[in-house]
Amino acid sequence: MNSIRVFAPATVSNVSCGFDVLGFAMDGPGDEVQLTLTSDQEIKIRSILPASVKLPMSVEKNTAGVAVKSLLSAIGSKQGVDIELAKNLPLGSGMGSSGASAAAALVAINELLGNPLSRNELIPHAMEAERIACGSAHADNVAPSILGGFVLVREYDPLDVISIPIKAKLWCSLVHPHIELKTKDSRKVLKPQILLTDAVKQTGNIAALMIGLMKPDSDLISKSLQDAIAEPWRAKFIPGFDEIKKVAAAHGALGSGISGSGPSIYALSETKVIAQKVGDQIQAIFRKNKINSEVYVSAISDQGAH
Amino acid sequence: MNSIRVFAPATVSNVSCGFDVLGFAMDGPGDEVQLTLTSDQEIKIRSILPASVKLPMSVEKNTAGVAVKSLLSAIGSKQGVDIELAKNLPLGSGMGSSGASAAAALVAINELLGNPLSRNELIPHAMEAERIACGSAHADNVAPSILGGFVLVREYDPLDVISIPIKAKLWCSLVHPHIELKTKDSRKVLKPQILLTDAVKQTGNIAALMIGLMKPDSDLISKSLQDAIAEPWRAKFIPGFDEIKKVAAAHGALGSGISGSGPSIYALSETKVIAQKVGDQIQAIFRKNKINSEVYVSAISDQGAH
Repeated sequence: MNSIRVFAPATVSNVSCGFDVLGFAMDGPGDEVQLTLTSDQEIKIRSILPASVKLPMSVEKNTAGVAVKSLLSAIGSKQGVDIELAKNLPLGSGMGSSGASAAAALVAINELLGNPLSRNELIPHAMEAERIACGSAHADNVAPSILGGFVLVREYDPLDVISIPIKAKLWCSLVHPHIELKTKDSRKVLKPQILLTDAVKQTGNIAALMIGLMKPDSDLISKSLQDAIAEPWRAKFIPGFDEIKKVAAAHGALGSGISGSGPSIYALSETKVIAQKVGDQIQAIFRKNKINSEVYVSAISDQGAH
Repeated sequence: MNSIRVFAPATVSNVSCGFDVLGFAMDGPGDEVQLTLTSDQEIKIRSILPASVKLPMSVEKNTAGVAVKSLLSAIGSKQGVDIELAKNLPLGSGMGSSGASAAAALVAINELLGNPLSRNELIPHAMEAERIACGSAHADNVAPSILGGFVLVREYDPLDVISIPIKAKLWCSLVHPHIELKTKDSRKVLKPQILLTDAVKQTGNIAALMIGLMKPDSDLISKSLQDAIAEPWRAKFIPGFDEIKKVAAAHGALGSGISGSGPSIYALSETKVIAQKVGDQIQAIFRKNKINSEVYVSAISDQGAH
């Protein structure tokens, strides 16, 4: 085999009480990468589709390129590779777009080379891509995109990423409003210090969320999907945010919040029917605020890039 | 039945990354309460043993008395009760001493009255006793003393207490050094604001601890038993603290830390043999610092007061 096509799913990070530590993967949508081994010892970005997507073709600036280069360099390989990227995820959406391309490219190159690295070992190379894309080598998008499911980033130094053995069956509605929100701005509103009482709330809720996901206990999941750290400051960037939360709950979602650093909104529900309705209702509120949006509904992935 | 004897166990609260939200119950030691129904519509503290213990005999100031009074008042009963208290737990030790007396008294009166309340419903009355004993109506000692096992206090308003369905088999070494440390002083060193990065560390670790306890995964429990919020400030109150942590780990403990607001030290281990050795080693360090101490070793209780 010298060519392979890999799909890597969109991801939701900063899952409410899991600010900076918790993410999960959708079953779809996602980015696709076609990788072909070549004999010329060079990594090349051959094409990026659709043509409307403005992403760098330079290997050093494209997340798929950076990731593949980082992996090959780590294992001391001078293998040549052609990369074709089908970019289905919107950029700057809070849906883990940059991470998905890197995840797909890494799983592809690893597979073509006979899997010299484990899935967990791919994560640091995807983080290098995140560093290029958004200035910080964070793992809470790339880890779920590579591993699937709910993933906890317990610690960065040394990196400790844990696949959470959840028993809850959950569906996600992901709604991407067409507003621009730079990660930089979204990060800037967070204060370097927070109230001790808010930190205690956050620890109580994330502990309860873990119990709820593993037991499983829908009621507990629902009660614990709260964010005392980021959401109170970031809500102002999302028109109609308070109404969105209320409407999502009223239509049966267990919880909802900002996906990543926004502007997308995620909601978790117990069935596909509820998730679809919740997504439609959130879209309706954006429409009321004169904002177009796309709605994606899928189960939580039980596999990562494939 | 008009008389009953109830034992309520010592508890460890502020379990490392579970500052203010996580506690667990020992199998022993604990306080014992003998309750006898009387016909004179009065609650009386009849005796407190051993005689050396200096605790108020007034119902309004004694935690067992306050708890029983709160419960009877809530259910509109004017039942008379005689309370005899066998106080086995050292006061101001960080072992949940005040909470254990209240827990024992509540389970006793509830039993004598035919269990009008559930175990969870007893907790608010025990919290009233904590308010008298230490100025704040906290639940992270009384809840595990009443319910047994590991208990999460997710939220205070409204109170939401969750028994954690742990699968890990754990033993606790609890070492009580004879030094005085007032809860007030222990509380005073904590800052009302903390670094966002420390809050993120704490959430990552408590999430991992829940996964470790439920899966179970000893390695994960061990890695996650860290406290970024309270321990860095409170360590100075415990002579030899850094050495204690190192020695506990070196002798096989999964983790260790300050019990409650101190000065007692807890350590968690996978077997009784390891827990005993770890306890002895911690005691040896206190001895080196010219401090006497008691060592208690027990399994984590799977039942509360009984």
